[in-house]
Amino acid sequence: MEPADLGHHISRRFNEDLEKLRSRVLQMGGFVEQQLERAVTALVEGDSRLGEQVALADHEVNQMEVSIDEECGRIIAMRQPTASDLRVVVGIIKTITDLERIGDEIEKVAMIASRLAGSDAGNDNYREVRHLAKLVTEMLHDALHAFARLDSQEALAVARRDRAVDDEYEAIQRQNITLMMENPRNIRRALDVMWIVRALERVGDHAKNICEYIVFVVHGKDIRHLSLDDAEKQIRGTATERQG
Amino acid sequence: MEPADLGHHISRRFNEDLEKLRSRVLQMGGFVEQQLERAVTALVEGDSRLGEQVALADHEVNQMEVSIDEECGRIIAMRQPTASDLRVVVGIIKTITDLERIGDEIEKVAMIASRLAGSDAGNDNYREVRHLAKLVTEMLHDALHAFARLDSQEALAVARRDRAVDDEYEAIQRQNITLMMENPRNIRRALDVMWIVRALERVGDHAKNICEYIVFVVHGKDIRHLSLDDAEKQIRGTATERQG
Repeated sequence: MEPADLGHHISRRFNEDLEKLRSRVLQMGGFVEQQLERAVTALVEGDSRLGEQVALADHEVNQMEVSIDEECGRIIAMRQPTASDLRVVVGIIKTITDLERIGDEIEKVAMIASRLAGSDAGNDNYREVRHLAKLVTEMLHDALHAFARLDSQEALAVARRDRAVDDEYEAIQRQNITLMMENPRNIRRALDVMWIVRALERVGDHAKNICEYIVFVVHGKDIRHLSLDDAEKQIRGTATERQG
Repeated sequence: MEPADLGHHISRRFNEDLEKLRSRVLQMGGFVEQQLERAVTALVEGDSRLGEQVALADHEVNQMEVSIDEECGRIIAMRQPTASDLRVVVGIIKTITDLERIGDEIEKVAMIASRLAGSDAGNDNYREVRHLAKLVTEMLHDALHAFARLDSQEALAVARRDRAVDDEYEAIQRQNITLMMENPRNIRRALDVMWIVRALERVGDHAKNICEYIVFVVHGKDIRHLSLDDAEKQIRGTATERQG
């Protein structure tokens, strides 16, 4: 076999490995999305058992992370990828860390939901929580979509939406502080809502991180600590260099 | 040059790269430790300007992370390390992510400290915060010490201390809820303390993560989702296999 053939062969194997890896990440992402939706349902419908189920299922998310992480290590060692191939694998290692941490935030929501359902909190429908949950669920979904297509434009657009999540989060926090001040009997409920929306806001942060890894994989630029406007300029720069 | 010499040469170069990398991580860790101590000083001494300085300096932590991350990518691509060598580099990539997130938590503490110093909070010496801060500062310091020596026994011992941090954190939260219930005028101060101790508790979590990466680097075992007792058993298993 000629060296070029061998190279081709390795690269085909690597591409197959990578396809499997990516589909496993998407599977993990899909499971995390489902967990998020179920945790919010448990809260809104006061379903204590569902809350418990979601919290217990977090260990599956953890196992997926450990297993994909090991697979990434195996692929780096076996195929010794360089440049953009290596970036894909490193990008995946980082993405699953964030998915796992999203899982942890969801677990917190689910546990509070389960506890609240068992208390006398009654028919509170948590309107404000539902609205924020909708924003972050969509953000996570679209971040995973951008990941699946390695679409850095979509990734940047999704990352921008974290601002709206932060604004909504701040508004809910302020509202809850007011409620607490008005009547001490509101304190417990307000605190629970504050912890829940805090967890949801963190989910938005992690979804944004995933978007930034996508840009890193596609363009080789680390944009994590740039403003999104500067990031967009840097990416245009890469695109121009490539055309030039 | 004989192939064995070449291998030796590559390995010597790799070891040099690795030494530089490790000392840069320790430098980053030392800077983060200093940031933590200064943030707590800003809070306790009501030093608004120091709080601002600490918050502003977080961008240095971010830059260190990006730069070390790039260096790790370069080393994987150039030296193509395998097995335990690769684990060291992957362990470093993960460690600096946690150090960067510790930086983010400290930034939050510094910003709240700066705001409180400017308000009429007066001569509050935040006894409970200082105690928790001492626990997590020591945990972070010792985690970095274990990292420097790649000492997995010390790493496990440090990881165990996260339990005490969590207990202390829970106690402070309960105390603050009581204070809020007693008098609505306590609400703002209690909430600020709650966010600060939350951030400190997260620092403890990240320090624990770093300890778990050390075990992964040394033994090739991912113990993140095991109990620490099970982790210890697994590590003993590796040690026995090696002796056998």
